[in-house]
Amino acid sequence: MSEATLEHGAGELPPRRNVKLVVAYNGAAYHGWQRQVGGVDTIQQRLEEALVRVVRHPVIVLGAGRTDAGVHAAGQVANFYTTNLAIPLAGLVAATNSRLPRDIVIRSAEGVPESFHAARSAVGKTYRYRIYVAPVRPVELHRLVYHYWRPLDAERMSQAAAALVGEHDFRGFASSADQRDNTVRRIDTCQVAEAGGEIHVTIRGDGFLYQMVRNIVGTLIEIGRGHWPVERIDKVFASGNRSDAGPTAPPDGLTLLCVHYE
Amino acid sequence: MSEATLEHGAGELPPRRNVKLVVAYNGAAYHGWQRQVGGVDTIQQRLEEALVRVVRHPVIVLGAGRTDAGVHAAGQVANFYTTNLAIPLAGLVAATNSRLPRDIVIRSAEGVPESFHAARSAVGKTYRYRIYVAPVRPVELHRLVYHYWRPLDAERMSQAAAALVGEHDFRGFASSADQRDNTVRRIDTCQVAEAGGEIHVTIRGDGFLYQMVRNIVGTLIEIGRGHWPVERIDKVFASGNRSDAGPTAPPDGLTLLCVHYE
Repeated sequence: MSEATLEHGAGELPPRRNVKLVVAYNGAAYHGWQRQVGGVDTIQQRLEEALVRVVRHPVIVLGAGRTDAGVHAAGQVANFYTTNLAIPLAGLVAATNSRLPRDIVIRSAEGVPESFHAARSAVGKTYRYRIYVAPVRPVELHRLVYHYWRPLDAERMSQAAAALVGEHDFRGFASSADQRDNTVRRIDTCQVAEAGGEIHVTIRGDGFLYQMVRNIVGTLIEIGRGHWPVERIDKVFASGNRSDAGPTAPPDGLTLLCVHYE
Repeated sequence: MSEATLEHGAGELPPRRNVKLVVAYNGAAYHGWQRQVGGVDTIQQRLEEALVRVVRHPVIVLGAGRTDAGVHAAGQVANFYTTNLAIPLAGLVAATNSRLPRDIVIRSAEGVPESFHAARSAVGKTYRYRIYVAPVRPVELHRLVYHYWRPLDAERMSQAAAALVGEHDFRGFASSADQRDNTVRRIDTCQVAEAGGEIHVTIRGDGFLYQMVRNIVGTLIEIGRGHWPVERIDKVFASGNRSDAGPTAPPDGLTLLCVHYE
């Protein structure tokens, strides 16, 4: 009988812990959250590479949401399992941050039950979209906001946003690349606020279809510039037709603010 | 006698106008203002390339200040001469901006006397340096601020800043790469202000030696963190020794706010 068998009974796994991370990043330089084949630079890959160097074993980081290329996060949540129980979590955060690029940072880490899964345990997410409204583009906010040079009526956008709240079939607001069968989602809040030359759309829901937030913002912009009536939202719900909604707003203005759990 | 000689007297130049531009840019992606040999990406080169496509003749853009790699501008000033008198200046701005990368923008253009020279006519410049003070780095402000994780005493920095005002020999605050003989400059104002988790150093003077603003900020930070007394400024003036001043603060936090003319 080998020593290993003496230490762990047959089939028994070594002890491990499940670690929940809150991660912020500037997505401008990355091809989105999700690891991809072919050497494309992604947030997940950078996090896994940094964590491997700290915990000294292979790591898979599971994210709550797969943000697209150019999309930012203030509070993305991810979890990973580690058999390295020697490192205190505060030390793990500091050591990993020192190995991450400066545009990615772990804000916090905590031990969570074995069953916690960043994506499946999530009960909601909040996104914010920043529209910078001015004739001259704001170079200091390059790739952090969507620059819109025509005036927008925030009051009309706010009225339209209210029509999004509740449980609806968001098929018409989903990218045609979204293959999910169930396109019913619940939007808890959708607020349009003016903030120093910008319009911020903040939206919280139990889940979002592919490019749903950016398609909602694109539709609100068409309403805000007066091209469509406020009632356009109802038309998109009624038809379920992507072509009735507005263009997909660019990724630059979008930030995953936080992920909600029970 | 050729037609050309009939149109313009011998040695007479075709009519031209001198155009003053106010330019803003996010310097993160560029190797500074000044055009360089070897295909390096610079602001001046991008501006010249865009203007050539609008005015349809070779253009040299003269900048008021040669900002370093990674340094930003809200109000850089430049001028260029054009023999194309057909395009209204508002149209020239719009056409050039549509041909510029999104992180460079011409804010305004105006016709100025033949003798106006963006650098030689300038009587002063104002720079602002942003220091973000917090334990966690601000990824959304990546390359827009200098992240400093230790606490800084803004009051001490403000007292030291006051000692910089006036006419002094700034030799000790200049990069050793600066070869100018006259190192006397006049600082009109140097203010340290706290602004929502950041410390902003705003400095106006009649001229700045190479890396002088960043060396001043590096010195103020050493004073702000308590490593040096407020009187350190006087010591640097007295010795004129670069090694008595603080380290060169990184370019990310620095913005050329405006250039002053009579």
